[in-house]
Amino acid sequence: MAIPYEVDPWRIRETTLDLQRLAQTESVFALSNGHIGVRGNLDEGEPHGLPGTYLNSVYELRPLPYAEAGYGYPETGETVINITNGKIIRLLVDDEPLDVRFGRLDSHERVLDLRAGTLTRTMQWCSPAGPSIRMTSTRLVSLTQRSIMAICYQLEPVDSEVQLVIQSELVANEPMPFLGTDPRTAAVLESPLRALEHLANDDRIVLVHETKGSGLRLAAAMSHAVETPGKRTLDVEAEDDIGRYTLATRLRPDERLTLVKYVAYGWSSHRSRPALHDQVAAALAGAELTGWDGLLSEQRGYLEEFWRGADVEVDGDPEVQQAVRFALFHILQAGARAERRIIPAKGLTGPGYDGHTFWDTETFVLPALTYSVPDAAADALRWRYSTLPQAMERARQLGLQGATFPWRTISGGECSGYWPAGTAAFHINADIADAVHRYLDATGDMEFAREVGVDLLVHTARLWRGLGHHDLDGRFRIHGVTGPDEYSAVVDNNVYTNVMAQKNLRAAADLVLSLPDEADRLEVTAEEAASWRDAADKMHIPFDERLGVHSQNDGFTDGAPWDFRRTPPDHYPLLLHYPYFDLYRKQVVKQADLVLAMHLCSQAFTAEEKERNFSYYEAMTVRDSSLSAQTQAVIAAEVGYLDLAHAYLTETSLMDLRDLERNTGDGLHLASLAGAWNALVSGFGGLRRRGGRPSFAPRIPETLGRLEFRLRYRGSLIKVTVHSEEAAYELVEGPELTIFHHGEEHRLQDALRLPIPRKTPSLPRPEQPPGRPPLGHLIQAPGQYPDQSR
Amino acid sequence: MAIPYEVDPWRIRETTLDLQRLAQTESVFALSNGHIGVRGNLDEGEPHGLPGTYLNSVYELRPLPYAEAGYGYPETGETVINITNGKIIRLLVDDEPLDVRFGRLDSHERVLDLRAGTLTRTMQWCSPAGPSIRMTSTRLVSLTQRSIMAICYQLEPVDSEVQLVIQSELVANEPMPFLGTDPRTAAVLESPLRALEHLANDDRIVLVHETKGSGLRLAAAMSHAVETPGKRTLDVEAEDDIGRYTLATRLRPDERLTLVKYVAYGWSSHRSRPALHDQVAAALAGAELTGWDGLLSEQRGYLEEFWRGADVEVDGDPEVQQAVRFALFHILQAGARAERRIIPAKGLTGPGYDGHTFWDTETFVLPALTYSVPDAAADALRWRYSTLPQAMERARQLGLQGATFPWRTISGGECSGYWPAGTAAFHINADIADAVHRYLDATGDMEFAREVGVDLLVHTARLWRGLGHHDLDGRFRIHGVTGPDEYSAVVDNNVYTNVMAQKNLRAAADLVLSLPDEADRLEVTAEEAASWRDAADKMHIPFDERLGVHSQNDGFTDGAPWDFRRTPPDHYPLLLHYPYFDLYRKQVVKQADLVLAMHLCSQAFTAEEKERNFSYYEAMTVRDSSLSAQTQAVIAAEVGYLDLAHAYLTETSLMDLRDLERNTGDGLHLASLAGAWNALVSGFGGLRRRGGRPSFAPRIPETLGRLEFRLRYRGSLIKVTVHSEEAAYELVEGPELTIFHHGEEHRLQDALRLPIPRKTPSLPRPEQPPGRPPLGHLIQAPGQYPDQSR
Repeated sequence: MAIPYEVDPWRIRETTLDLQRLAQTESVFALSNGHIGVRGNLDEGEPHGLPGTYLNSVYELRPLPYAEAGYGYPETGETVINITNGKIIRLLVDDEPLDVRFGRLDSHERVLDLRAGTLTRTMQWCSPAGPSIRMTSTRLVSLTQRSIMAICYQLEPVDSEVQLVIQSELVANEPMPFLGTDPRTAAVLESPLRALEHLANDDRIVLVHETKGSGLRLAAAMSHAVETPGKRTLDVEAEDDIGRYTLATRLRPDERLTLVKYVAYGWSSHRSRPALHDQVAAALAGAELTGWDGLLSEQRGYLEEFWRGADVEVDGDPEVQQAVRFALFHILQAGARAERRIIPAKGLTGPGYDGHTFWDTETFVLPALTYSVPDAAADALRWRYSTLPQAMERARQLGLQGATFPWRTISGGECSGYWPAGTAAFHINADIADAVHRYLDATGDMEFAREVGVDLLVHTARLWRGLGHHDLDGRFRIHGVTGPDEYSAVVDNNVYTNVMAQKNLRAAADLVLSLPDEADRLEVTAEEAASWRDAADKMHIPFDERLGVHSQNDGFTDGAPWDFRRTPPDHYPLLLHYPYFDLYRKQVVKQADLVLAMHLCSQAFTAEEKERNFSYYEAMTVRDSSLSAQTQAVIAAEVGYLDLAHAYLTETSLMDLRDLERNTGDGLHLASLAGAWNALVSGFGGLRRRGGRPSFAPRIPETLGRLEFRLRYRGSLIKVTVHSEEAAYELVEGPELTIFHHGEEHRLQDALRLPIPRKTPSLPRPEQPPGRPPLGHLIQAPGQYPDQSR
Repeated sequence: MAIPYEVDPWRIRETTLDLQRLAQTESVFALSNGHIGVRGNLDEGEPHGLPGTYLNSVYELRPLPYAEAGYGYPETGETVINITNGKIIRLLVDDEPLDVRFGRLDSHERVLDLRAGTLTRTMQWCSPAGPSIRMTSTRLVSLTQRSIMAICYQLEPVDSEVQLVIQSELVANEPMPFLGTDPRTAAVLESPLRALEHLANDDRIVLVHETKGSGLRLAAAMSHAVETPGKRTLDVEAEDDIGRYTLATRLRPDERLTLVKYVAYGWSSHRSRPALHDQVAAALAGAELTGWDGLLSEQRGYLEEFWRGADVEVDGDPEVQQAVRFALFHILQAGARAERRIIPAKGLTGPGYDGHTFWDTETFVLPALTYSVPDAAADALRWRYSTLPQAMERARQLGLQGATFPWRTISGGECSGYWPAGTAAFHINADIADAVHRYLDATGDMEFAREVGVDLLVHTARLWRGLGHHDLDGRFRIHGVTGPDEYSAVVDNNVYTNVMAQKNLRAAADLVLSLPDEADRLEVTAEEAASWRDAADKMHIPFDERLGVHSQNDGFTDGAPWDFRRTPPDHYPLLLHYPYFDLYRKQVVKQADLVLAMHLCSQAFTAEEKERNFSYYEAMTVRDSSLSAQTQAVIAAEVGYLDLAHAYLTETSLMDLRDLERNTGDGLHLASLAGAWNALVSGFGGLRRRGGRPSFAPRIPETLGRLEFRLRYRGSLIKVTVHSEEAAYELVEGPELTIFHHGEEHRLQDALRLPIPRKTPSLPRPEQPPGRPPLGHLIQAPGQYPDQSR
């Protein structure tokens, strides 16, 4: 398989159209601002891999069936739906519809420009009837005007006059190619929208719909500005599920038609049909006033400011350079204007995982946002905070104290239908608390702490205090939970969960100490806070003295080893070929678990433990999850296997650009993309938190000549430049601050140059399970790798 | 609530009809021979609690849905269906249909006669229009003619001449009151039968149907013999789903009408429609030849022989006396003529648990059958053997060696939709092996050993050898399984599982040693057998030295205690009010688990361990399963708490006669019924296996003046009579044999009288969880107890 995209530092450019890979490219070329998401479907609508237009948190309910029911099982799930499609611009050239499957495609190019924030498509097509046209469309989802998508669509005949009919549409309830295997779910999703209003008035069209089960109303509106030299006819019409703007004209070879299409979206569970109608009409008026050039210019300006504080430069690996910027761009798209709504695991790029958000967001996506667009990180956590009443109710339902956040959700309710890998994965609560801690550490934002942070920390601390218990020997234990490694479930004293809970308990106790009024409001007594510290201090952390490594949970290292030699290469991901009971009881790890604990709770492990643990678990970690490689990169870098870290960096970076898991088609893996940043900044940059001061331990492999990254920290912007022998720190703006470099404290006033100490691991470079090395060193030929699940 | 049935040693007699309790009484009055099962529905069909006619192993398929799919999950389940109802005899008195809800019921009595094997109903009813009639119907399901049910129906006018129209029917696809909550399952069950043939020929009617999904064909036929003094008209007709024999006559007060209805059933997955038609017609001809009196007489003779070898007599507790005979009668009904088909958890008395069989049969029901009707026990195990190919295929699917028998099934395929309490409950394989061991121990039947036993033992031993593994210290461990206590799941080294597996491994190794030809056939080498013994010898049995008790599984005694004080009485069974994750991680026990291990693997525990373990687990065992009380009775008796054992005996004995779990309506709890026998014979009688010799340790509470039971052992019939101070053993028939009495060996030639040593427990009588004492001492008022699940 050829590399599908040109390697370019600032652009994702595709120069031939491969119809077999349409779905994947639609995800890669998706545009979003966190509120609206549009997949990179072709303007003319067909062919498509998967049509997709999404509004953050517009979902439908679907039944969650069980062969055997159980107390506390959620009976209704939520699933993202394809909303009114405003991307469609159909074209009739003479009497032939433009369709790349017919006629002759002389050229076809798509470019996602990471600085312009646009997707541009250029093609020359010769119709089966003879005439050729050149078409260029440029599409943007505005980062500055949250409700707006706009398309600039241009046509030129190549060599003869043609008659052109353009049909620009809004289409609701588009037929979908695949609606899942459950007939009841398919029934729900087949035509999810019920029409409330359709209006065609002059050149403006408005469609208002509502969802049937979840009771959400949404409105879409469009208007057009057209420039064309000759005579034209216009027709504007609307029905329940379609609005159509039809323009007919004739064009000579030296002439050009330009159509700008503005589309506005809005939704609400509360606001009335007329209010929504007016809202999208107003948004449209605003966009028209700004105009296409104005939207383009605002977009570029917004991104310029973003890249100034977020860019990561890598010498020596142009693929990773491109990938990390692609990653940051999509993270920005997912989070920029989500504004107290979710950041789903696949952003708004596809319907994968039902459009749910998981722990991925807090654990893997928010770090990059926290240090580049901290307000967006705060908003993501404000969304969690907005669901606190549901999480407290869920805790009550489960007989627990505090709050229990859902494993997967859109609106805040638990949507997981398999509790051992859902409800039991209580670590998500510590992951949320850790994201709060990270944000507060990086910003010192005490208003946030008072309004949002303290509630999240206190209610999660209460959860842990009630979930765990002291044993006869006084140790604090947390039994019956599932850690990040989903190949071990419902275990006792998962190290990751326990050290994260420990951190959660201590962070809550610290914060209430500094916010006595809020502590009073939340009725946290000194006794309660002391009981959190006590539980944290007595936390039981399983360690196997025989092996000199931590046991991922009680009894883990006594489990049978997985028989890798008898596992055929096509039996990955294992969960599709082996029953859970077999995976759970053996020593095989789906994704970094203990190794992630060593990243996020760095100080809970000695350097020697990190080395030994990394080697032990590396040999049984199969990476059947796209979340794993980045963490292995981070710890491989810390313990000194820089080449291995580079290979894992490459794997996580190219997950979607190379479609390594073969499921990029249903959306990008946002957390894996974020892994490019994590592997570079936390891995090679060695970024860790250390009491309100950033701590770095940079070290890069010789293959990379230079790594440079930017970081916002407590109102300052820091630039870190790493070479193999030394690192430079520059205070780009903001107040001076203290940093750590390889454990030593330094005052950063404007610039520092510091040498990098050498480090050689004491153990040989660890082996991965047979056939499961990082894909980085083989990345040229991704076709040979089997599917992997999340 | 009044006691619903008269206390009588040989009869279950109901003297008033309570329409609110119809379903429960239909289960209690169900008749079966293990092939046909008919619920005690009223002759006239309505009102009913739940209409029910069953043929062993006639089931329909239903989908097993999952909110999240998983490898190896069964996607199709089996569910028992209500087949063609041949019980119905409707009556028109003048122009009023007989319906007990209308008119006046002057008397109504139903009697299940445990020696006659009949259900007799006697009533006097005054129609709303004035005339009164007396009706007597006697129903039997023949234990001697396996395909036959017969009803003798008699009518007498009370005080005036009446016109009577009798409609005797066969009805397929009866409307059912409740078909479950899953719409897809309800759709499957609504009309499960498709008509293939209907025939009305003279007075014989045949209906042949097939199931839609499972592809089974079944035939029902009926014929009648009538005696009536006056003129009569007859009409015989059949349609797809109904056959109707209509008889009209007039009767004066001194006259009597007698109608005998013969019904024959047959089914097959292979045999053709004509073959089935002929089969039921032939059965009918046979029954007609025998005649009603002949059937009655054969039935009584069969039961006389049964009671001679099976009866248990108890002085001092007439309720238990009645209950244990009721229990033995229903066990016989379930197993007598099952003939290599299943014995479901509810027999053929109702549709509860979908009509599935579980481990209950081998563990709790087969002991009573093994020692009273050993051929029936052999047949039940031959059914398991017949499913060995499916169990071996299931093992292959799960990546295991040997065989994995299903947790719940009708035809041999796994039908469990929740794997932590299904697939993971591997102990069922050891339970089957133990039932084989018990049967061989009790009979010495080497033909069975060669044909059936060795295969079952070898394939289950192979399962254990592959499922477990040796750890770094050389201990053999079995990780990730679920023991009998379903409030702990997917645990490591469940003691019950490990000691039962140990026994299984050793039994297999012993048997192949004595059957070298069979070992060759099964390719068991000396090395393999040695590896079984090695694994058994090194079996890891968790023991908590701090507490001096066994830990139910690794880490169990480190779990948080359940907070019983904060558990309201209406929150039992806990599984309906608390999530699995909470139950699993805490010290709370649904049903005897370690305590069952101490019964079935008596020699794996010292007397002191038994006492300490019993006390420790007694305090946390909530008995949310009807399977538990009998085991607690057995061990309470062994360790010396005789009153407590009596209370548990009472609870298990009266489970259905008092509807203690409020779900007798969907069928009897066969294993709980069997518990009456187990509690008396293994509890107070102290029966254990000891190398082909029966071992007794009888000891009864003073409240029971005498316990007498019979036992078939290696071709002999033994009668054991226990008083508080001494026990008498009598060899009723068969060769002399060696027995153990309280550990001492004795030769039983014709009779022995032996003193019973005194025993006082060293620990105080243990407490149960608050509000969860055995129901025995409060049995007069069962209404106050909440529902319990199985």
